[in-house]
Amino acid sequence: MSDARQYFKLPSPFAMKRGGALHGAHVAYETWGTLNAARDNAVLILTGLSPSAHAAANAQDPSPGWWEEMLGPGKAIDTRRWFVICVNSLGSDKGSTCPASTDPATGEPYRLSFPDLSLEDVANAAHGVVTHLGIDSLACLIGCSMGGMSALAYMLLHPGSVCAHISVDTAPQAQPFAIAIRSLQREAIRLDPHWNEGRYDAEHYPDIGMSIARKLGVITYRSAMEWNGRFARIRLEAEQREEQPFGFEFQVESYLEGHARRFVRTFDPNSYLYLSRASDWFDIAEYGHGNVMEGLKRIRIEQAMVIGVSTDILFPLEQQEQIAEGLEAAGAKVEFVALDSPQGHDAFLVDIENYSRAIGGFLAQL
Amino acid sequence: MSDARQYFKLPSPFAMKRGGALHGAHVAYETWGTLNAARDNAVLILTGLSPSAHAAANAQDPSPGWWEEMLGPGKAIDTRRWFVICVNSLGSDKGSTCPASTDPATGEPYRLSFPDLSLEDVANAAHGVVTHLGIDSLACLIGCSMGGMSALAYMLLHPGSVCAHISVDTAPQAQPFAIAIRSLQREAIRLDPHWNEGRYDAEHYPDIGMSIARKLGVITYRSAMEWNGRFARIRLEAEQREEQPFGFEFQVESYLEGHARRFVRTFDPNSYLYLSRASDWFDIAEYGHGNVMEGLKRIRIEQAMVIGVSTDILFPLEQQEQIAEGLEAAGAKVEFVALDSPQGHDAFLVDIENYSRAIGGFLAQL
Repeated sequence: MSDARQYFKLPSPFAMKRGGALHGAHVAYETWGTLNAARDNAVLILTGLSPSAHAAANAQDPSPGWWEEMLGPGKAIDTRRWFVICVNSLGSDKGSTCPASTDPATGEPYRLSFPDLSLEDVANAAHGVVTHLGIDSLACLIGCSMGGMSALAYMLLHPGSVCAHISVDTAPQAQPFAIAIRSLQREAIRLDPHWNEGRYDAEHYPDIGMSIARKLGVITYRSAMEWNGRFARIRLEAEQREEQPFGFEFQVESYLEGHARRFVRTFDPNSYLYLSRASDWFDIAEYGHGNVMEGLKRIRIEQAMVIGVSTDILFPLEQQEQIAEGLEAAGAKVEFVALDSPQGHDAFLVDIENYSRAIGGFLAQL
Repeated sequence: MSDARQYFKLPSPFAMKRGGALHGAHVAYETWGTLNAARDNAVLILTGLSPSAHAAANAQDPSPGWWEEMLGPGKAIDTRRWFVICVNSLGSDKGSTCPASTDPATGEPYRLSFPDLSLEDVANAAHGVVTHLGIDSLACLIGCSMGGMSALAYMLLHPGSVCAHISVDTAPQAQPFAIAIRSLQREAIRLDPHWNEGRYDAEHYPDIGMSIARKLGVITYRSAMEWNGRFARIRLEAEQREEQPFGFEFQVESYLEGHARRFVRTFDPNSYLYLSRASDWFDIAEYGHGNVMEGLKRIRIEQAMVIGVSTDILFPLEQQEQIAEGLEAAGAKVEFVALDSPQGHDAFLVDIENYSRAIGGFLAQL
């Protein structure tokens, strides 16, 4: 199987924000395009909770990536001009050290002995990759969803390391609705008897908890408006229905089931729990004496574009507006793009036309 | 324990919309005020999925009801003028025949042998109570949430039986977002091994499934806006936190847990599944050759008030607007009240001030 991942060994020990340290840890990343001699054409992408570093096809791995239509020669993030790096979050099981990795101290998987994970740790690990590549300052840092919060942490913790920033469908802190959703996702997993305090294996695996968590995720990643047009009340064909009491009957139910099936065994449950909680914990107000705006005002960059969608219920548009206002108050030149894409939080993965226009336009004028 | 419930024996057999019939079934109801000699001052309330017939305190049961502040002498639904009836939905375990009831044919609980339940059956059972009380025509039919859909069924199936209608936070059909939420609630219950295809008992009870279902319910009954003001990111005190991995840390998590604990063992899981699916099935378009507006246009009443809330994500305001338009097209005098209450779908239970003003005003002019 082709694989484009490269690995960066983190300094060992790698101190974690909330205490503890990782030894011999690494993060996976992929790159596209070429770093120029001045080393000033680098764009770093920080991802949402579940995507890998494989944002797009490249020579080593021609399979389509999670942002395939956004990234490549002639696309919005034009790899003829930019040297693009995408880092798999520390704590994610897509190649980086995570709770499923072996703890060198014991020779056993970390599981719940993995130290508390914060998005600040994710940011510091990504900054390590950038430094390792010989890049002092990123031309642009792009963060999507959870990656948008990691990006805010990156800019706060590493002043002077970013010239421009694109903030995509994210928030400066988790609000209670998002916390409630993620808490319930985590609960579905940890109440699954097969989770077994993190000591599951392939034979006894929290499939049910993971499935419920994923479906709840998909429900909040999309929007009611999109589904009205897409599924309405269309029934499944008789042969597609589940042969069991209260089995699926509507297309929307089978759509969720498809999403869950593709996810359940491809994402490590403990890693999911750690990253989910890191998203709840992140709060830029911690850097502003309890005030979001004061936290944002500590970020030093030249310009930014902040994009959000009116149909996003998980990261509502008001939160993007807050980021835009805060970065502007901090002295950056800020463009705020409020889209009406019907796809909700996931619009950045689906409404490529509008996101391409915004992101491509912003990068072109840098 | 005081109990104000009265019981109406349904005609036996009582044919169900989707096939099958109940034998020796009954529904529970309560009343407030006095039916006048002309028998033209009756107001019927049809409830949401979980409430009982105890909408307010009365002589036989002085404990507060679920709509205590709305209903009573001098209140919006003034029991000095109106004879108010609240019926516990057929299929609900708050006194009416439901899947937990004994099947007279076997002497065993129905469980999943209970016939398919529709909101049309709920409406027909409620209509039986009204007829039994000697009332030909209701002065006003009030339906809240699921009860609003039952009310639409009632008016369609029993033309001439209702003069005025108040539609509260409801919909003419379930849209895919609501179906997805309810489907996931049902799945959490039926995937709980203790549900055991409906054959649970007090020892082996689907507590986890019911808890997840209830929390998901509460998340969608309220609104993100309300929670931003109410919980923000406030942490639990150290001694309130759960002593377990990924345990609760934020107030919003403990709020959800409180709701779940109060619900889990007080509502029969099978009854919940039947009523939840009945809500998904209801579609007024079935009465209008596949068209919602045509279905609504078949309802014959004199006047109506339709109330909804902009923060309701489960029954969005556009759906109330649709009901208002349809009833108007049917020839009724319609008042449409769009509220900005921050409490979401549950606003009718919480924002008593605004709902009282609207409902009280409407009833006063009848």
